[in-house]
Amino acid sequence: MSTTSIDRDRFRERFDEFNQIGATDAGGVNRPALSNANKAARDKLVEWFRTVGLDVRIDEIGNIFGRREGSNPDAEPVMFGSHVDSQYNGGRYDGVVGVLGALEVIETFDDADIETDRPLEIVAWSNEEGVRFQPDMLGSGVYAGVFDLEYAYGRTDDNGNTFREELERIGYRGETPCEADDVHCYLELHVEQGPYLEEAGVSVGVVEDVFGFSWLNVTFEGQANHAGPTPMHMRRDAFAATTDVAAAVREVTATEGADLVGTIGSVEVHPNAINVIPERVEFTVDLRSSDNAVVDTAVDRVREEIEWAADREGLECDCEEIMRVDADQFDEGCRDTIAEAAVDAGYEYTRLSSGAGHDANYLNEIAPTGMIFVPSVDGISHRESEYTEWDDIVAGTEVLFRAVEKRASR
Amino acid sequence: MSTTSIDRDRFRERFDEFNQIGATDAGGVNRPALSNANKAARDKLVEWFRTVGLDVRIDEIGNIFGRREGSNPDAEPVMFGSHVDSQYNGGRYDGVVGVLGALEVIETFDDADIETDRPLEIVAWSNEEGVRFQPDMLGSGVYAGVFDLEYAYGRTDDNGNTFREELERIGYRGETPCEADDVHCYLELHVEQGPYLEEAGVSVGVVEDVFGFSWLNVTFEGQANHAGPTPMHMRRDAFAATTDVAAAVREVTATEGADLVGTIGSVEVHPNAINVIPERVEFTVDLRSSDNAVVDTAVDRVREEIEWAADREGLECDCEEIMRVDADQFDEGCRDTIAEAAVDAGYEYTRLSSGAGHDANYLNEIAPTGMIFVPSVDGISHRESEYTEWDDIVAGTEVLFRAVEKRASR
Repeated sequence: MSTTSIDRDRFRERFDEFNQIGATDAGGVNRPALSNANKAARDKLVEWFRTVGLDVRIDEIGNIFGRREGSNPDAEPVMFGSHVDSQYNGGRYDGVVGVLGALEVIETFDDADIETDRPLEIVAWSNEEGVRFQPDMLGSGVYAGVFDLEYAYGRTDDNGNTFREELERIGYRGETPCEADDVHCYLELHVEQGPYLEEAGVSVGVVEDVFGFSWLNVTFEGQANHAGPTPMHMRRDAFAATTDVAAAVREVTATEGADLVGTIGSVEVHPNAINVIPERVEFTVDLRSSDNAVVDTAVDRVREEIEWAADREGLECDCEEIMRVDADQFDEGCRDTIAEAAVDAGYEYTRLSSGAGHDANYLNEIAPTGMIFVPSVDGISHRESEYTEWDDIVAGTEVLFRAVEKRASR
Repeated sequence: MSTTSIDRDRFRERFDEFNQIGATDAGGVNRPALSNANKAARDKLVEWFRTVGLDVRIDEIGNIFGRREGSNPDAEPVMFGSHVDSQYNGGRYDGVVGVLGALEVIETFDDADIETDRPLEIVAWSNEEGVRFQPDMLGSGVYAGVFDLEYAYGRTDDNGNTFREELERIGYRGETPCEADDVHCYLELHVEQGPYLEEAGVSVGVVEDVFGFSWLNVTFEGQANHAGPTPMHMRRDAFAATTDVAAAVREVTATEGADLVGTIGSVEVHPNAINVIPERVEFTVDLRSSDNAVVDTAVDRVREEIEWAADREGLECDCEEIMRVDADQFDEGCRDTIAEAAVDAGYEYTRLSSGAGHDANYLNEIAPTGMIFVPSVDGISHRESEYTEWDDIVAGTEVLFRAVEKRASR
């Protein structure tokens, strides 16, 4: 068993340097997909990949791969990585820990002069967050064959720019075809983005499964009218119906499943004037659970409430499920490898579910896949105050190193 | 008693020509205050005022007056009019009926060669709607001494342009001081913007009083977080609290007063992403009743719920009353004059309250004031489909003519 360790100071220095790119005053980063800051982060990554001698490939959707050959040129690679795009004014850890951790793992192999049997392939997936171009996990989704390349290219941001145009603008529409390679396994280190590891008091989480989720896009269309002379019973108030649905979302989470969560995250009100009854509201519903049947039931209940609320208020309504991802177990072998690696590295671990979707979900469709979580302080994520202790990041990276070593040496 | 009548065809022609300015494809008009379309509407008005021989004055806030002298140069004038700014994509009737109706009344006096004792003064108030520059009824408010001129000048639109800059840009910062003249009485013809006249089946409404109202600006500040891994009990969801307040607003209208209405018209959610728990929501509450005590109680109840909702969700909250207007009775003499004028003109009338605020509210502070309503089909207003039958507009204008005649001849 290896006694090799990562270089925590080198890793920290690199982490801090990287997060100067797109840094915000409040301590976060603003590097949404295909922005200038995202380009700068990609450039830095490619520079570092090349500096450590990796063979860099950029594919048609902008996924960035760096390869270190093994002793067996015919063996399928062990792949590991994450993403470097961020939420708008997001945190420094989400995705970055997994990509720079992967690079640190490569350097640790180099420093220790370890030649693996299998090639090692590290990766930064394109547009994981999905805040500027939806859906999220677009790069890994195209790679895994979940989305067509042309579909991805045609996605537009709020300004009407297409994904393809912006990818070309920043110079990251690569020549490598975006399609799944034969991969021995895929491993991803990521911050938990939830409170469970901190509550459990451990540094390492072995992710058993990922919540399934449904995204609904709902539009209520009623009638704008003056807020003064229009009696309550004659109103067709699109926002009133929206608030009924919001109440139903919370009720459903209280009754339909222990780990079910429901969120109305985006709401647009028209005409949005203080003295005009809302004519149209567009909003989203996000429902998640580790149990697909629970998500099904929750979606049914919320859809019913949408119809009832529209009926009560006399509204037209439209409800479209724009995304449905099934709950998914990660590969048992990968989970066990990660658990063994944690024991080898001397860290306590716990097994848990991931409430968030990750690129690993799509990789799980084409290769055995596993995820390592490290704690998020106060469970905070997707905001500038997101924080993970450096000791925990080191722990997760040590575990990643050992898991890769186990998998690549066999 | 006069048997003179207005010229319905001339009036109709002028009305249709006027509403070509800023006309929208859906049959409305888009002439928000101090826009280019609002300037064009003002220019047309000034041209017509001059064509019929009125002495035109424009005051410092952009109110446009047109004066027809009477036989007694020392008598206080009878003033009547309304406004020609519109909502964003608003209707063709709101305000315009009262201003062009006033012009038609002047022409009717001219055609019949009637010399009144008192001067007649018609007026188009500046920025009644308050959609681009808040608060609404700004021109009449400064005129009546409710707002300072400098306060009004400093109001900014969403682009940061001040009222003064935009008023100068369109050439309507006039030289006449904006201050209340000695006015014998003020009369305003307006569409009802509510359903009651249509329900009552009459063409003319004598407005008894105007609802008082309160506008609250509320901000909830919680914590953004990922919609997946954050359990429901750990959330600080600013939108969940907003929906609780929305439910309370409806409950209060159901329990606290027969004519109490409550509206949440404007809602801004941040960061407004499908998979992020809302961190901050800013929204407005509009509460109205003809009974000031009912508005008081409703505001107290809603404020309580705002605090409870913030407490439940663990939010910071801020609630500011940005506008409070007391319910107000119109002058009894003016009401009676309008009722007599309706009888003289051969129209059935009913007495009713106004749910909406009008320039007449502020004029009521400085002079005896009365309002004439004509029906709004389906009670619809503040939208492009706003509609009033031409017969009803003619009826209201006939009543205005007779009411002015009664008042100006005494």
